[in-house]
Amino acid sequence: MKICKVPGGVTTPKGFKAACCAAGIKYKGRTDMAMIVSSAPCAVAGTFTTNKVKAAPVLWDMDVVYKNRTAQAVVVNAGIANAATGKTGLDICQKTADFAGATLGVTAGSVLLGSTGVIGPNLPLDRIQAGVKTMAGTLSDAMEAGTAASKAIMTTDTVNKEFAVEFELPGADGGSVTVHMGGMSKGSGMIHPNMCTMLGYVTTDCAIDQALLQKALSSVVPDTFNMITVDGDTSTNDTLLVLANGMAGNAPIADMNESYAIFCEALFSICRDLAVKMAEDGEGATHLLEMRVYNADTKENARTLAKSVVGSSLVKAMVFGKDANCGRILCALGYAGPDFDPSKIEVHLHGEKDTLCFYENGCIQAFDEEKALKILSEKAVRFSCNMNMGDQEATAWGCDLTYDYVKINGDYRT
Amino acid sequence: MKICKVPGGVTTPKGFKAACCAAGIKYKGRTDMAMIVSSAPCAVAGTFTTNKVKAAPVLWDMDVVYKNRTAQAVVVNAGIANAATGKTGLDICQKTADFAGATLGVTAGSVLLGSTGVIGPNLPLDRIQAGVKTMAGTLSDAMEAGTAASKAIMTTDTVNKEFAVEFELPGADGGSVTVHMGGMSKGSGMIHPNMCTMLGYVTTDCAIDQALLQKALSSVVPDTFNMITVDGDTSTNDTLLVLANGMAGNAPIADMNESYAIFCEALFSICRDLAVKMAEDGEGATHLLEMRVYNADTKENARTLAKSVVGSSLVKAMVFGKDANCGRILCALGYAGPDFDPSKIEVHLHGEKDTLCFYENGCIQAFDEEKALKILSEKAVRFSCNMNMGDQEATAWGCDLTYDYVKINGDYRT
Repeated sequence: MKICKVPGGVTTPKGFKAACCAAGIKYKGRTDMAMIVSSAPCAVAGTFTTNKVKAAPVLWDMDVVYKNRTAQAVVVNAGIANAATGKTGLDICQKTADFAGATLGVTAGSVLLGSTGVIGPNLPLDRIQAGVKTMAGTLSDAMEAGTAASKAIMTTDTVNKEFAVEFELPGADGGSVTVHMGGMSKGSGMIHPNMCTMLGYVTTDCAIDQALLQKALSSVVPDTFNMITVDGDTSTNDTLLVLANGMAGNAPIADMNESYAIFCEALFSICRDLAVKMAEDGEGATHLLEMRVYNADTKENARTLAKSVVGSSLVKAMVFGKDANCGRILCALGYAGPDFDPSKIEVHLHGEKDTLCFYENGCIQAFDEEKALKILSEKAVRFSCNMNMGDQEATAWGCDLTYDYVKINGDYRT
Repeated sequence: MKICKVPGGVTTPKGFKAACCAAGIKYKGRTDMAMIVSSAPCAVAGTFTTNKVKAAPVLWDMDVVYKNRTAQAVVVNAGIANAATGKTGLDICQKTADFAGATLGVTAGSVLLGSTGVIGPNLPLDRIQAGVKTMAGTLSDAMEAGTAASKAIMTTDTVNKEFAVEFELPGADGGSVTVHMGGMSKGSGMIHPNMCTMLGYVTTDCAIDQALLQKALSSVVPDTFNMITVDGDTSTNDTLLVLANGMAGNAPIADMNESYAIFCEALFSICRDLAVKMAEDGEGATHLLEMRVYNADTKENARTLAKSVVGSSLVKAMVFGKDANCGRILCALGYAGPDFDPSKIEVHLHGEKDTLCFYENGCIQAFDEEKALKILSEKAVRFSCNMNMGDQEATAWGCDLTYDYVKINGDYRT
């Protein structure tokens, strides 16, 4: 089975259009609203923040995904998160969905909402509605429309994030058909997803049963979006949604057959790519930080150990400083929680060409400082740890801790 | 019962002497070794890092505390942590204790060791032994000797940390006697103690049973040293030790009577003071950050919620930027873990004069930005959250996240 990367994003699958506009929610001189619309109703699946303080649009989307299980449009804004806004925030969601539904000719209950930005302020409903009207008139299935939408949902992101793939599945009428899947996401700070991510939207023209769509999403999230961290802060707004409109003409996936396995692989590739892009674009980041833990006793322990290293402030600061202070990796493994024998593990630093052993036999090893500096100067800094306990592995992604992270977050509102 | 703060530190209790020297372990032009010696054998209690990667001196001290249960001297060095050093590190501990024991005329098994600094390198045994010899010749019970010792164990600390109290207990021969307790600690980065702290030493001339001494220490640590965080990184070397030599002449504390309660209160006051001083002196910090959670359903939930707020990178950066972006406090409470109803809680900011309500009835509240800026400009920034769920409370302490934290930790080794 082959999953091929193709250009594009959310408008790559058949039947999906996108639009964006400058609604003036908070930012000036840039787009700040995006819309995705499918020409046919979609099976929908989602994962949401585990934060007890959930933003109003998260509560709205949970209702759509868990109760209605079908959707046809997504309306997103950047600048204001519509979180900690009480009943007023929920009213604004209802009114936005009502207005978008009426404008697009779909039910309000099939409109998904997303917000990202400052926690606290209320959304200006008039501007949101004006934005919806503008976007409804400029929807396009062009690749550029998807790209423009992925830019409109950015906050402190420095690059937009989109990814698309295609793959073959058995056709509904025999033979085989090409199925597409595309996605976009945003997120740079307050990134420590827990069963979800900041805002992520995946579209596909695959025909798949809604329960299996949710199952597929829930199976790929633990090793993709849940394995990244920028600052350890799990947002109030994290939302990841997948919409499947079935227009590819494949034989509908109704059980966990080979087509389902291919679909999961495609979904995994999109989610991993978007997740790594978010880690790489972490607020103020100058490096992508990757930690692979292998030969662990359990999958969960491998995940916990890998995330502990990429989440350590001291490891992050050392990567920023290109300082091979590898004891900090040991330290972060040691306080992660899972039990292990420090005398049995091995820690390596992997450059594009060279690999250095930092630690084995219970001791920090002597290494070539010049080589280490060279590897730590690469854009992606990759560490691994062989636990020598079993056959489970996991990889986590993060970024370095820089002056700019402090600058960005010391003065975010103004 | 009255616990009175008095000047001094580890040499304040009767029978304790201290010394320090410049052994040239790593730093130049400053002291980097300290020694505490009691003229009588002491009951000893300790708490140690929960990190799976424990430094050699931690393993050594655990043996002394859990097996021998008595000690008479402490030898500490700054600059090199003697962690991730395998069997060589343990050998150096044995040889240091042998040498110190012979020099001081006590058994090697009654010598406690402490190291703090870079993880990885081996300690230079010759300089350590030379330092021990020098210090043994300059031991003094003067207050200044304790202060000098507290300075010698600093690494990235900007101020030394010591504290002493005295209190009355029934005398062994009737009447009442004055009992003293003094402590010193160091720690500025890699601070997120878990059942322990970086390096902390408390001395007392109180006569108390060893098992009760350990019980008292274990009871005060969860609400003192375990409630501070600088960067979420639990060190490999965290060690907190209490030595009680019984020279005050009080009726020995052998059960959990009123004297035991007074002793616990005194120990709590020292541990809290040293812990808050460590948070306040967090690497690069310009503010102390305090979070009090009250009316929580359980003590453990109160602790978890309070620690989540002071540990949040985004809250820490906002305190540095004096930006009243209070949604981040809500966010950090929400992802902490404990369940609560966001519509029932209240969040306040407390200045020396004014108190501002940031959040209630499920909504961020409008507040006077000028007043908020004034309060956020105070050295100590204090938040509280009323959970409205029960009667349990906890307070956690941390510091802001600054450019200097990144600078200090981007380039620590060089």
